[in-house]
Amino acid sequence: MKFVKNDQAAVFALGGLGEIGKNTYGVQFQDEIILIDAGIKFPEDELLGIDYVIPDYTYLIQNQDKIKGLFITHGHEDHIGGIPYLLREINVPIYAGKLAIGLIRNKLDEHGLLRTAKLNTIQEDDVIKFRKTSISFFRTTHSIPDSYGIVVKTPPGNIVHTGDFKFDFTPVGEPANLSRMAEIGKEGVLCLLSDSTNSEVPGFTMSEKVVSGNISDIFSRVDGRLIFATFASNIYRLQQVIEGAVKHNRKVAVFGRSMESAIRIGQELGYIVAPKDTFIEANQINKLPANEVTILCTGSQGEPMAALSRVANGTHRQIQIIPGDTVVFSSSPIPGNNVSVSRTINKLYRAGADVIHGPLSDIHTSGHGSQEEQKLMLRLIRPQYFMPIHGEYRMLKEHTKLAAACDVDYDKSFVMDIGDVLALGKDNAMVAGKIPSGSVYVDGSGIGDIGNIVLRDRRILSEEGLVMVVVSINMKEFKIASGPDIISRGFVYMRESEDLINEAQKLVASHLNKVMERRTTQWSEIKNEITDTIAPFLYDKTKRRPMILPIIMEV
Amino acid sequence: MKFVKNDQAAVFALGGLGEIGKNTYGVQFQDEIILIDAGIKFPEDELLGIDYVIPDYTYLIQNQDKIKGLFITHGHEDHIGGIPYLLREINVPIYAGKLAIGLIRNKLDEHGLLRTAKLNTIQEDDVIKFRKTSISFFRTTHSIPDSYGIVVKTPPGNIVHTGDFKFDFTPVGEPANLSRMAEIGKEGVLCLLSDSTNSEVPGFTMSEKVVSGNISDIFSRVDGRLIFATFASNIYRLQQVIEGAVKHNRKVAVFGRSMESAIRIGQELGYIVAPKDTFIEANQINKLPANEVTILCTGSQGEPMAALSRVANGTHRQIQIIPGDTVVFSSSPIPGNNVSVSRTINKLYRAGADVIHGPLSDIHTSGHGSQEEQKLMLRLIRPQYFMPIHGEYRMLKEHTKLAAACDVDYDKSFVMDIGDVLALGKDNAMVAGKIPSGSVYVDGSGIGDIGNIVLRDRRILSEEGLVMVVVSINMKEFKIASGPDIISRGFVYMRESEDLINEAQKLVASHLNKVMERRTTQWSEIKNEITDTIAPFLYDKTKRRPMILPIIMEV
Repeated sequence: MKFVKNDQAAVFALGGLGEIGKNTYGVQFQDEIILIDAGIKFPEDELLGIDYVIPDYTYLIQNQDKIKGLFITHGHEDHIGGIPYLLREINVPIYAGKLAIGLIRNKLDEHGLLRTAKLNTIQEDDVIKFRKTSISFFRTTHSIPDSYGIVVKTPPGNIVHTGDFKFDFTPVGEPANLSRMAEIGKEGVLCLLSDSTNSEVPGFTMSEKVVSGNISDIFSRVDGRLIFATFASNIYRLQQVIEGAVKHNRKVAVFGRSMESAIRIGQELGYIVAPKDTFIEANQINKLPANEVTILCTGSQGEPMAALSRVANGTHRQIQIIPGDTVVFSSSPIPGNNVSVSRTINKLYRAGADVIHGPLSDIHTSGHGSQEEQKLMLRLIRPQYFMPIHGEYRMLKEHTKLAAACDVDYDKSFVMDIGDVLALGKDNAMVAGKIPSGSVYVDGSGIGDIGNIVLRDRRILSEEGLVMVVVSINMKEFKIASGPDIISRGFVYMRESEDLINEAQKLVASHLNKVMERRTTQWSEIKNEITDTIAPFLYDKTKRRPMILPIIMEV
Repeated sequence: MKFVKNDQAAVFALGGLGEIGKNTYGVQFQDEIILIDAGIKFPEDELLGIDYVIPDYTYLIQNQDKIKGLFITHGHEDHIGGIPYLLREINVPIYAGKLAIGLIRNKLDEHGLLRTAKLNTIQEDDVIKFRKTSISFFRTTHSIPDSYGIVVKTPPGNIVHTGDFKFDFTPVGEPANLSRMAEIGKEGVLCLLSDSTNSEVPGFTMSEKVVSGNISDIFSRVDGRLIFATFASNIYRLQQVIEGAVKHNRKVAVFGRSMESAIRIGQELGYIVAPKDTFIEANQINKLPANEVTILCTGSQGEPMAALSRVANGTHRQIQIIPGDTVVFSSSPIPGNNVSVSRTINKLYRAGADVIHGPLSDIHTSGHGSQEEQKLMLRLIRPQYFMPIHGEYRMLKEHTKLAAACDVDYDKSFVMDIGDVLALGKDNAMVAGKIPSGSVYVDGSGIGDIGNIVLRDRRILSEEGLVMVVVSINMKEFKIASGPDIISRGFVYMRESEDLINEAQKLVASHLNKVMERRTTQWSEIKNEITDTIAPFLYDKTKRRPMILPIIMEV
């Protein structure tokens, strides 16, 4: 990082700027790099078939000797999901709160990386000291226990990263450490990196206690079976449901792999507390009276393979909807999932369940602070410079307006892109340069082997399908030995389009014969002739542009 | 319809129940069928590459001699878009308000069907009489002028179809005819079919006048260029923008094909009124000062090819974002479009524009009535029986709750499926049977030639790609003549996966040689051997399951 002066600290992001997800940030002073979070992102629809998106770790690999540690703000996938991929490249020590460590441990175990990982559990009062930098923490409230903000002390000044946060004054679990934040602010903060997720939402995010009260009401009111779907990672919410069940003499059955491990880890670490006989096995749910059954399951986002979706489709092995069932979506659809969530709700209604969902029923609240909370953070931390993080461009931009309203002028706010490096001196700040960065696609076991060409092909195949023209050519005699045969997939239903296919075949054959007469030995010429013949023909007949794939075999 | 008695009227839907779109309803009494609306639906994401969805018209084709007319409630695509496809099958006379006729005319012209179409413009006071049934109308308010509810008078009683509606007491345009509705109710209504779109939304939908005021404010406040994106069919909104422009001495340039024809048709029919020199050509926008330019364009849903998306991407030929530009989304994203709308907003911000959007800015309102308006309709029409229409299952279901609150008991409400037939006698009603129904996919010029097999193939291709194994076999000597060659698309980037492909090739070759030794003449056996060899190999190496396509040529 030649463009950063020796007395400046550098702040950069490899993810989580201009996007929601793959949060990965770095603070560097000279030869010490502090990493904050290592998340994944769930792909948007046009990334066909891609499972996850992770950051390009090139800069970290190139500078691995400088990396002092990876500090985790909390245990959500968009903050810890990248760890296995990062650890495969560089085995950096990891520091995180107790729950996050539990979740990371589980994840690394699945990836066969647990044995070599260096995991350190931190407490709020811990200070991790390196030669030039040191790290301390402050407790925040978020939709998962053990969420921390992080303070990186560097010679030019303190850099504060909020993690994800809201200010829930009546939380389920421990409250945010306001006095600590005020102290940090009083001590002086060079730069604040703050969560922008809800910067377009006015006011103050509803407290988890309100949700809690409404969940309790549902238990009092409903007589049939209760099926709760929520994010597995929302341990507070799970605990609320379990407490409701216990209070109303219901047992709890848990469905869905991530929900099962969340419950297991939550119990092991003491975040989920329930009398011994609260949980029942899947096969017991049909043996108990309806009003003694609570089901906790995955699928609140309408994910096609999740438990609730299979229940809605009538394809779940253990759970069939029966009259009197009430399904509660204790969640809100992530943008992009609205349609699949809506479809699941429709199917549940059709199957005869009552469904409680949506903002009006107040059975979910965001884990992120709204505008007033973001302003409160700005007022407590009182930073000299400001860098909005965690959010799409529009949200980062909006967050700078809130900062300006809290006396951090626009010229002291930096809306950055992934890879941009903010150089911070005692009384100066500028985007000084760029490091390698980008997105790496994970598909199956392949990391980074799917690029734009493959995705472009998938897109064409998905919308228009494929037409293959297969021909064997005797290259000595310049004669067609066999074919041309036409095979299609995703284009038309071939059995019902025989005429079209036959006509295309004849057309290609007659053109190929002419090419053979020219005694060409250029395969590319033959291939082009096939494509140039059949593509306009098919477009004319169908107004579709399938991918054309000429396949020539020499015999 | 043997299951309907001779003294009963039958009501059915071929679209618009349990879904949003392709609204197509029928009322039949003996040998007279009255059709109401003929819409299309825009496909959901999993209908890969499909352009539109239309209803299965089988029942209408089979009973074409009975169809007296197609009555159109208003000119939106989900109510008129199916007309060209229906007219290709049966040339039924069409009755609609002035604007809808204009839009239908334009549509039929594009499809080359205008010459033979029988178009009739109706006025609110018209009564269209057939032998046993007669049709009358009542004016409603909706997001397009000339919206009507329809009354079908049949011997057992009057059947009322609301079309899309809200009760805007301060509309832009003409108000709903409340007294007419009250009269219809007083006269007696056997069954009400009412718009359920917003049945989950409490309260009363905001008036278009509020939007109008806010648009006017934007004109007063903004000094740079103003770019408005909205639905082309929202003629009222277009007129508001044009009035604002005229008042503030701005010219208006129009971009996007549907917007241009809406403006043209609106002007021709007198719904859009502007001084002669208001509109300017595309190439003039850069010649005028910024504060004299208004741009009206398509793309409010983030549609990739629409004008605004191309502006946001920097690929629009005439419009480049310049500092000071303000883009107004006078629209709300349809579920499923949130992500693409959000992406467009981000890009516009990045390009340097200010963007006004979202529910907080009050520059859009729904065209559909909320719960209180749906109740008002129920109270005015006072039906004996009720059938919620226009909406997903959950919305139809919710609408029956509102009906029950307005004294139409649950046993008199019928939440039906497409194809269900409601038989209505003077004092009885039941779902008596089913007629042929379903969805027909339009892709390019093909209508109904894409079925589930093709879509399933497109889905596999889109997520996992395709691997072809091509081999020429000399069937006389039981020898491989050429190949096997492996070609893939959408699977891995082949140049970077040479080892994988080579290994697969060798594996298939060795298995094929064994098959040849068996001297089999069964192609299916050879094909299965190829698939069974390569599929597990590729899954093991990549954790992906591409479509495997063995292609064997005999030489």
